[in-house]
Amino acid sequence: MCGMSQVLERARAEELDGADPLAGYRERFWLPDPSLIYLNGNSLGALPLATLRRVETVIREEWGTALARSWQHWVDLPARAGDLVGELIGAAPGQVLVTDNTTVNLYKLASAALDARPGRHVIVTDLDNFPSDRYVAEGIAFAHGMELRLLPADIDSGISPELVRAAVDEDTALVSLSHVAYRSGALADMAAITATAHQAGALMLWDLCHSVGAVPVELDGCDVDLAVGCSYKYLNAGPGAPAFCYVAARLREVLRQPIWGWFSQRDQFAMGPRYDPAPGIAKFMTGTPAIAGTAAVEEGARLLLEAGIGAIRDKSARLTGYLVELAEAWLEPLGCMLATPRQADRRGGHITFCHPAAERIAAKLGEAGIITDYRSPDRLRFGLSPLTTRFTDVWDAAAATRDVITCGG
Amino acid sequence: MCGMSQVLERARAEELDGADPLAGYRERFWLPDPSLIYLNGNSLGALPLATLRRVETVIREEWGTALARSWQHWVDLPARAGDLVGELIGAAPGQVLVTDNTTVNLYKLASAALDARPGRHVIVTDLDNFPSDRYVAEGIAFAHGMELRLLPADIDSGISPELVRAAVDEDTALVSLSHVAYRSGALADMAAITATAHQAGALMLWDLCHSVGAVPVELDGCDVDLAVGCSYKYLNAGPGAPAFCYVAARLREVLRQPIWGWFSQRDQFAMGPRYDPAPGIAKFMTGTPAIAGTAAVEEGARLLLEAGIGAIRDKSARLTGYLVELAEAWLEPLGCMLATPRQADRRGGHITFCHPAAERIAAKLGEAGIITDYRSPDRLRFGLSPLTTRFTDVWDAAAATRDVITCGG
Repeated sequence: MCGMSQVLERARAEELDGADPLAGYRERFWLPDPSLIYLNGNSLGALPLATLRRVETVIREEWGTALARSWQHWVDLPARAGDLVGELIGAAPGQVLVTDNTTVNLYKLASAALDARPGRHVIVTDLDNFPSDRYVAEGIAFAHGMELRLLPADIDSGISPELVRAAVDEDTALVSLSHVAYRSGALADMAAITATAHQAGALMLWDLCHSVGAVPVELDGCDVDLAVGCSYKYLNAGPGAPAFCYVAARLREVLRQPIWGWFSQRDQFAMGPRYDPAPGIAKFMTGTPAIAGTAAVEEGARLLLEAGIGAIRDKSARLTGYLVELAEAWLEPLGCMLATPRQADRRGGHITFCHPAAERIAAKLGEAGIITDYRSPDRLRFGLSPLTTRFTDVWDAAAATRDVITCGG
Repeated sequence: MCGMSQVLERARAEELDGADPLAGYRERFWLPDPSLIYLNGNSLGALPLATLRRVETVIREEWGTALARSWQHWVDLPARAGDLVGELIGAAPGQVLVTDNTTVNLYKLASAALDARPGRHVIVTDLDNFPSDRYVAEGIAFAHGMELRLLPADIDSGISPELVRAAVDEDTALVSLSHVAYRSGALADMAAITATAHQAGALMLWDLCHSVGAVPVELDGCDVDLAVGCSYKYLNAGPGAPAFCYVAARLREVLRQPIWGWFSQRDQFAMGPRYDPAPGIAKFMTGTPAIAGTAAVEEGARLLLEAGIGAIRDKSARLTGYLVELAEAWLEPLGCMLATPRQADRRGGHITFCHPAAERIAAKLGEAGIITDYRSPDRLRFGLSPLTTRFTDVWDAAAATRDVITCGG
């Protein structure tokens, strides 16, 4: 252990980088600007070199050279990539598909869930859930004449099982929540909340956008029904790459999603007169999948699996813990308050601060080559991506934030 | 004019290539195998060199180097690309978006249409419409307890205004048809059929997958309500690149689509508590758009606009006409019958033949480096893409088909 003054020295950050077992992964990414400190991987993850090569192969060789003949191996890509993502989130094969975007997947799964709970009239989500999660639920509730019950989330500490228990009842069809909250980074108790939803007879839908690739997820182990997540944050698959959806094996044959497309047809190329949904997870496909983007998801998942989600979570906890330590010493005394749970096991991969001038601070940091992000009205987020973020990045960003605030934040 | 024997000489094809004003466009594509005869651009169009460069820039520079900062210009890309596609299909700016896939767009627009025609219980489509078009309509009819009325399409000559007139009535909410039929290539009379739907008080939804970039389309001029189309055929945007949707300006403010996502929210980054749909076409977005794919659509549309849809249609009619001529001399006597309208102005960019051994013929042609495609149970399609297909390709493919059939088809 070292004293407070040593903790605050940059040398300590260098020491932590030197001892970091994942340090070598940074070289597996295309990061051409050595002066850039990128702390926004929770919005858009960096570009893996393997993905750069793979996408080039897909475009040039598979599309450009082999042309439509490539559909022979493309046609199963969403399920193959899905199984790989499944490994990251504790899902046995055959339950995950890479397809569509998160919003469309939320819509498909939430609609399917309501059909499976006829006579129930309530969808439960929380006021601080990500906008698409809330809006999709609102739209479905509107279309079905149902009630949307919004939990009064504590935006700093997230959703507790007690909050959910107080909100669900025998009229609840679906509970839809984010595993890691997009604003605060708070990590919800997946097992306990899922059990609470099930006790009320409701189905449970988790949004993993901010947890996949950052924290261990055990969907099968937690008896989760449904999940979705995007691929462009810690999965590093690029802007607007396809999202994924998970449907538990026990529900796969029972549920029916509302968007009946040719890629979810049992005998797709027979192009038969009537819709006959495919058995298995393919039923949750819609139309023609985005091939280059799906290949990028496969590469992103492969890189995370190689590093190991345990090692990633371990470094993530240490990165966020280090930022909290520095913030307690430098930022909180200046009124830049932590808005993320202080205990490492209660948060995901990003740290959020609350400051009235958050937008201006983020802009000033950006000018200095430190990319964070601002969330309305007063939040400043630091996304710490274990495969690319160094402890020295954390130190430099915290020191720069202190200096920006001191000079008139 | 030349006599029949000269028409059938390969020298005639060479002459036609020599006089082709669009011949130079073939060099604008990545086609590394000079021996390949690719007649499947109606399934997956070839790779434009500009797209190869653009996608590489998006991946390497915009994503890899600039990272999340690129969202400043990415955020409007679906509408910018949409306006460019709009130029190709006779749509004034602000009515087209590049987003999601065709199936999801069909679902959004068909659902919105039904909500705008309360009290009506029928969706009209045709038995030979593309599977996703039929299945989406079937799914929506199922969910709403409505009737799906399937026109008994003549699969060789397509849908006539008379067929539609006989099917629509005061209970029809929506007529959903393809402009160019995916099997036969028959071109529907957009103006007359749209007027027929309107006379019954129904809304009209056109699928342009097989017409965009191949035949002139005048959505505004034909008073069309809604349209969708994919981008990976004649638009050459690559496998699973995002599709587009068109909503006529007069309906844009009235209609409400069912998938309420954060990209269709009025003040997206306020992330407000309730869904408040954006004014204008952005209301038809769902979640985060696929950026590299959308950029590819922009490049594909630009190339087609540069060549000019008039010149493209002119060459397309001459290419398909040439194949019909050769087929009349060589293939029909062998029992390989034309299953596409014989008049050039009644068909799109592909020619379909009917032969009991179609699957085997397509496989044999493929082995010889001539890529066509087979559609169940007995159809053989030749897609002739005006920017890449040569008259000599048509001659070579027709001669090879004759030889395959002669040797035991």
